[in-house]
Amino acid sequence: MSNAIYVGTSIDGYIADSEGNIGFLESVPNPERHDLGFADFMESVDALLMGRKTFQTVLGFGVAWPYPKHVFVYSSLLESVPDELADKVTIVRGELHEVIGRLNTEGYKRLYVDGGELIKALLREDQIDTMVIARLPVLLGGGISLFGPTPAHLHFEHVRTEVLLDAIVMTTYRRKR
Amino acid sequence: MSNAIYVGTSIDGYIADSEGNIGFLESVPNPERHDLGFADFMESVDALLMGRKTFQTVLGFGVAWPYPKHVFVYSSLLESVPDELADKVTIVRGELHEVIGRLNTEGYKRLYVDGGELIKALLREDQIDTMVIARLPVLLGGGISLFGPTPAHLHFEHVRTEVLLDAIVMTTYRRKR
Repeated sequence: MSNAIYVGTSIDGYIADSEGNIGFLESVPNPERHDLGFADFMESVDALLMGRKTFQTVLGFGVAWPYPKHVFVYSSLLESVPDELADKVTIVRGELHEVIGRLNTEGYKRLYVDGGELIKALLREDQIDTMVIARLPVLLGGGISLFGPTPAHLHFEHVRTEVLLDAIVMTTYRRKR
Repeated sequence: MSNAIYVGTSIDGYIADSEGNIGFLESVPNPERHDLGFADFMESVDALLMGRKTFQTVLGFGVAWPYPKHVFVYSSLLESVPDELADKVTIVRGELHEVIGRLNTEGYKRLYVDGGELIKALLREDQIDTMVIARLPVLLGGGISLFGPTPAHLHFEHVRTEVLLDAIVMTTYRRKR
């Protein structure tokens, strides 16, 4: 059982600017469309657990559905998903740790957790085991923060760091327990 | 003329925890007392411009004076410095950009700016040219933030990244102008 995040952030730790824009994620030229380790990361998980806002943002991109693993959308508001995603996406609700326990029991043991609020909710409970953080070389100066309160100082093991596209510092951390 | 910072921070961008403690900076074992590039960085500057609180914190360490370059303490409150530092430390006051202009004119063209408030004041005016950021592998969950508001998205060039002591990700950034 493990919860992992894979997320792009500014040097100052924002995942969107103060207008909610994420254009800075595309601010580094990527002519050969390097996937920034996304496929490898995706291989390492059994499913995604995603917040509603992130889900709706992805839908809004109007691109082909990008996830090869099942996506569980954590939402008490969402009532249905588009028909074409019916076999790829499931809405889940309830207490977060119960939802995760249920998914684990169903065989989805390694979860890729995505979405600012969901990540912060899990950090608050010290439930994040692996973090893959891609630092883009920009200061946004404000916006939606990746991080939030934790119950204590949470120490991590540094697993690896790579510099991608001569600009993005991508570090994998594993929680020391 | 350039202003540089060299600073240790948590993954979530804090330079001290919510009690003002900086013990996390010593949380990585460093048996051979690696200087984390400090001497090289110090070679690259002409003087330090330091906030009062940082100055008083350094004094409070009770260690030998650690700076081989002249230190200018930016403070409207401080009236004097300890006698033994009289030839090493000068108090400066006034508008920050005027103080920096004056130091530049006096030949201190490359400044190492230290102190949370001073760094944030310069970021607010887009006056930081070089950032050497050492990320310790810990989430503090709150405290004194390294970063603050900026007048816009500030883009930086990634100069280099090294992993030190198998744990600390040290990245040098240079402002793109």
